[in-house]
Amino acid sequence: MSSTYGNRIRFSIFGQSHGEKIGCVIDGLPAGEAVDLEALYRFMARRAPGKRLTTQRRETDRPYVLSGLFEGRTCGAPLCVLIDNQDTHSADYDRLRDVPRPGHADYPAFVKWHGYQDHRGGGHFSARLTAPLCAAGGILMQMYERRGIRIGAHLYSVGAAQDLAFDPVNVTPEDLCAVGDDFPTLSAERGMQMQAVVEEARRNGDSVGGIVECAVLGLPVGLGGPIFDGLENAIAHAVFAVPAVKGIEFGEGFHAARLKGSENNDPYWMEGDTISLTSNHAGGILGGLSNGMPLIFRAAFKPTPSIAMEQASVSLRDRRDERLSITGRHDPCVAIRAVPCVEAAAALALADFCLPND
Amino acid sequence: MSSTYGNRIRFSIFGQSHGEKIGCVIDGLPAGEAVDLEALYRFMARRAPGKRLTTQRRETDRPYVLSGLFEGRTCGAPLCVLIDNQDTHSADYDRLRDVPRPGHADYPAFVKWHGYQDHRGGGHFSARLTAPLCAAGGILMQMYERRGIRIGAHLYSVGAAQDLAFDPVNVTPEDLCAVGDDFPTLSAERGMQMQAVVEEARRNGDSVGGIVECAVLGLPVGLGGPIFDGLENAIAHAVFAVPAVKGIEFGEGFHAARLKGSENNDPYWMEGDTISLTSNHAGGILGGLSNGMPLIFRAAFKPTPSIAMEQASVSLRDRRDERLSITGRHDPCVAIRAVPCVEAAAALALADFCLPND
Amino acid sequence: MSSTYGNRIRFSIFGQSHGEKIGCVIDGLPAGEAVDLEALYRFMARRAPGKRLTTQRRETDRPYVLSGLFEGRTCGAPLCVLIDNQDTHSADYDRLRDVPRPGHADYPAFVKWHGYQDHRGGGHFSARLTAPLCAAGGILMQMYERRGIRIGAHLYSVGAAQDLAFDPVNVTPEDLCAVGDDFPTLSAERGMQMQAVVEEARRNGDSVGGIVECAVLGLPVGLGGPIFDGLENAIAHAVFAVPAVKGIEFGEGFHAARLKGSENNDPYWMEGDTISLTSNHAGGILGGLSNGMPLIFRAAFKPTPSIAMEQASVSLRDRRDERLSITGRHDPCVAIRAVPCVEAAAALALADFCLPND
Amino acid sequence: MSSTYGNRIRFSIFGQSHGEKIGCVIDGLPAGEAVDLEALYRFMARRAPGKRLTTQRRETDRPYVLSGLFEGRTCGAPLCVLIDNQDTHSADYDRLRDVPRPGHADYPAFVKWHGYQDHRGGGHFSARLTAPLCAAGGILMQMYERRGIRIGAHLYSVGAAQDLAFDPVNVTPEDLCAVGDDFPTLSAERGMQMQAVVEEARRNGDSVGGIVECAVLGLPVGLGGPIFDGLENAIAHAVFAVPAVKGIEFGEGFHAARLKGSENNDPYWMEGDTISLTSNHAGGILGGLSNGMPLIFRAAFKPTPSIAMEQASVSLRDRRDERLSITGRHDPCVAIRAVPCVEAAAALALADFCLPND
Repeated sequence: MSSTYGNRIRFSIFGQSHGEKIGCVIDGLPAGEAVDLEALYRFMARRAPGKRLTTQRRETDRPYVLSGLFEGRTCGAPLCVLIDNQDTHSADYDRLRDVPRPGHADYPAFVKWHGYQDHRGGGHFSARLTAPLCAAGGILMQMYERRGIRIGAHLYSVGAAQDLAFDPVNVTPEDLCAVGDDFPTLSAERGMQMQAVVEEARRNGDSVGGIVECAVLGLPVGLGGPIFDGLENAIAHAVFAVPAVKGIEFGEGFHAARLKGSENNDPYWMEGDTISLTSNHAGGILGGLSNGMPLIFRAAFKPTPSIAMEQASVSLRDRRDERLSITGRHDPCVAIRAVPCVEAAAALALADFCLPND
Repeated sequence: MSSTYGNRIRFSIFGQSHGEKIGCVIDGLPAGEAVDLEALYRFMARRAPGKRLTTQRRETDRPYVLSGLFEGRTCGAPLCVLIDNQDTHSADYDRLRDVPRPGHADYPAFVKWHGYQDHRGGGHFSARLTAPLCAAGGILMQMYERRGIRIGAHLYSVGAAQDLAFDPVNVTPEDLCAVGDDFPTLSAERGMQMQAVVEEARRNGDSVGGIVECAVLGLPVGLGGPIFDGLENAIAHAVFAVPAVKGIEFGEGFHAARLKGSENNDPYWMEGDTISLTSNHAGGILGGLSNGMPLIFRAAFKPTPSIAMEQASVSLRDRRDERLSITGRHDPCVAIRAVPCVEAAAALALADFCLPND
Repeated sequence: MSSTYGNRIRFSIFGQSHGEKIGCVIDGLPAGEAVDLEALYRFMARRAPGKRLTTQRRETDRPYVLSGLFEGRTCGAPLCVLIDNQDTHSADYDRLRDVPRPGHADYPAFVKWHGYQDHRGGGHFSARLTAPLCAAGGILMQMYERRGIRIGAHLYSVGAAQDLAFDPVNVTPEDLCAVGDDFPTLSAERGMQMQAVVEEARRNGDSVGGIVECAVLGLPVGLGGPIFDGLENAIAHAVFAVPAVKGIEFGEGFHAARLKGSENNDPYWMEGDTISLTSNHAGGILGGLSNGMPLIFRAAFKPTPSIAMEQASVSLRDRRDERLSITGRHDPCVAIRAVPCVEAAAALALADFCLPND
Repeated sequence: MSSTYGNRIRFSIFGQSHGEKIGCVIDGLPAGEAVDLEALYRFMARRAPGKRLTTQRRETDRPYVLSGLFEGRTCGAPLCVLIDNQDTHSADYDRLRDVPRPGHADYPAFVKWHGYQDHRGGGHFSARLTAPLCAAGGILMQMYERRGIRIGAHLYSVGAAQDLAFDPVNVTPEDLCAVGDDFPTLSAERGMQMQAVVEEARRNGDSVGGIVECAVLGLPVGLGGPIFDGLENAIAHAVFAVPAVKGIEFGEGFHAARLKGSENNDPYWMEGDTISLTSNHAGGILGGLSNGMPLIFRAAFKPTPSIAMEQASVSLRDRRDERLSITGRHDPCVAIRAVPCVEAAAALALADFCLPND
């Protein structure tokens, strides 16, 4: 497996943070699907750096489709999508080759790959690799929209500051579009408070964690499978591909552990001739299968490990204690730019279930 | 995929709650590994029904190894393990064929499988299928122990009542064994309070949720892989195979979203000639790779959906509202018996990483 | 992988020649498919021993479906099919534990599995494992028939004696049924000559090889995929699961290497409004995709390695030369009973392409 | 699957014959492996066009490694290898959009992909896609050589003209290197006769088929697996990825069907303290496992379907008969340039067995 995902429809992500290009191959997509590259670019721009409160590393992140499109449509052949790495400052990482950054993969990657890993910017473990993830997810989401399936996420919290939540029963496609462009919250007012929390962390040379909430609308009933093939298995598997994710929950999630069955069960009722549920504590999933309600989950992001404050580390080769202050440009809160990454990861997880067999 | 899991080492779980037998096939295990069937049975007994506070359905759940063992050791051929279904009361489920139980897979399974699903006791979606999951996991755990890897879990909470937590830095194999036999907590005293919460739910014809905490000790540094092949991806994928799991978190998990980077990063230091970490907020995983600290995660279980209290449902065929009271025998808290299931799911997730290629 | 096959629809075969039972799990079948167990048994009987010219080992080989059927139809849950091993003479194999039989897997299996392999009757490498393969294939073929897809094979040759061949352009379902029950040839007369060849080999304590020809009718145009996912890749992968297969060819196969393009190409023409081909040198496959013509392939079987004549071998433990005469009961020509096995292997290979996604 | 292959080590091939670039991603390679790009280029040159008797399409086919290398060695991250398409004459294919070429995938690809396939030069079905296959295989072969494993092939026959064969028992690495550069035969003299056959076909505006023989030396005993995971299953699966392959056989292959067991079995003997075989009719594989003898197989190639002679075809859209003469530049015998492709396909098939788990 490693950097590949999927069963019928396969995704293979490649590249390193400071390599020339990064990208992905998407194999098994249905043929004849138009791909709107401008819309894809607008989606990519949501995670692109250079915005307020995010790293100053400037990259256009304009994806380039090298193969798989013919006359603007998928042609059955695998898509290869490339994105340039620009404006990399590899020199920032020279010392880090020997001194692992706390909270990053540096040390276990050094051990796993016997010192041959590309350490620059975290190499293949860098959040930079979420760019091809978003490219793949953005392409899928265009195909889903034609099928009435919409995916949207927002920044649910940073530190103790919270945005509003999606209405688990009545969330609409419009609600998904109501997420802010500059700062991805449902409530602009709460967004201001949340930005203040991030600003303060930055001022202190520190960082802060956050939670992203995601909703998938329009899934037909019965998608998924038993035991290992449920929607929760698949979405969790894919969302943990986004760096810094340390937890995921569906519907009431961890709160369900505090509830009674009489509180947590979602009763059925006939809405005209349609079977519906009066509540959505399950987050739209029962026994791994979609139940017709909005699919809702939340992913918890740890604070950015790269901080300016001095930290304790070691020398991998000299085996002695070291002190480390990380220079370079880093997001004080990875969860902000992770919002479209979570949508993209969900899109990958749903591909085998939502797209036809071609 | 469906009910299969794994890449090099493959697990295929089969059976229905009220079928004659259930079981699993384990393919790709190393040859020459002794399997202690009595120890396996003792492990299985931890999830077996018939204990206080759990369903009265009586089953010995003694696994029977049909193939793959020769003279007491694995012989390279796939293991097929069978477990009898006994004491099933299918008649309890006649009405449920048309009236889906809130909180169960009944309705989406009916849609997915066009009404052909085996509805009795939830069929293939039943928690009963955790018996073969535990059989597979229990066999793996014997192989891990020989390699110095230990997996142990306890009931971390039910409702608002909490057990102690594993010490994330200093948890020992002995701590894993300190979990109670009759009620799986670290603290017997807190266990009494937690049992009281479950008793009360049962008295009210209701149920309650809970959280299971699991630790894996002895993993070498660098196990796992990037992006889609990290330990978190794999463990989350497998743990969501246990019915009623609605969330999973590693290390600080969702709490990390409230922390600062300076609080959440785990600094390095030289413990003699060994690289060590002074804290374990990461739960032993960085960038998807094991970092040498105890791997710690928690899984949130929703309350048992089967409750005696009357609930609203519908008739799938007559398309009209119905009222439903679930008879039959059910655990008031699935999390209790789920403790060994979580260990087993973690064991499956680790197989491709921990066992040699044969 | 090992003893598992398939992507969407998964097959996991387990058991050893002299174990208690052998069987397989089939995961991912569409729900609601009736399974005619009597018809399955009749199909299994075609490979069952006890017929003239085949081993005298007597087994009913009646498959027993342990799970996955509910009220006579697939219910979405995985099928587990079991077959008893009866009338095993393990004592026949005691000496073979140390002295590998030429032409069998004994020696490399001993090395691969460090001496822990089940040596009795070849263990997991035995042709006995084609019984569950046929059970799985027979179930699939019932589902294919409902979809207008028919698979049939015959014994094309033994030694130098040949049966007639399928007409590559005009072969009909009736032709597939014209294969003899007692001896699986198209021509009863040629079948007599072929049986004489087998009889002579048996009289000499020797064995003889043969070729099985298989046709698949009714495949829609465009089934398969590019590069690694073509029908030839899949069928070859699956057919080599039948022991003693040493070659496979499609359409003209090896003979195509002697032809000119002008001789081997299959021209198109309009048969009314239908695009058709005037010849079928390609065996119904172009670029890995079905082209609407009968899919035709041949599999070459080596002679049964187990012969009564004395052979040279070695002692694996004492490292000295040995002489070996194989007692026990063996087919003088494995290709005879392999005819339904080849059909079954083709059925497995086609499952991901021919059955719906459930 | 489609254009991906492999289990632990994954290959994903992308691109179309007339796209800008083609390439592949190789995921899961061990880290720290030096890749000699000049040696890789020399290997690629063996299949590159522009040589005598092959298409005049001129391409350097110099592979470019976009990711996965750091300081000249694999760094654990996936390799992405790109190759430019140059000198494409898409106009040659305008008419072919509606009139499928006999012997090509054009027609079934049109049906499979609903008319959206890239028809130019066969698109993703083009033999052009063997360039990235060879790039991947060439990289693997460098890693195999360090482990004492050598793969080599030669043109065994064209039409009725034959080269010498590898000595199945005594073939040496030197023999593999004895294959001609300009024309890939063991015997230069026979190579001249074989070239004459190709020349004649070309003069007649026709083409001719051929057979490639491949040997793998240095495999340890016991590589492979039972039933579906044998070396024959894997190699056959991969070799059919090379366009125009219509058959494959191992060792005696189809000839084994004419032999007696006493003729085909390979007896064992003690060569000093080493267990050896006195013959190699099995082609180095027993029960799917390597037995220590040279692994030898042959792949049959049909004649190039693209011929100048006029052929019968149809109009896909107007549904009427058409006549077709294929212009453009084509090999009169694809088997010549396929020699390194067969080596590369074998290399891919062996990756999961021969390379360590990293």
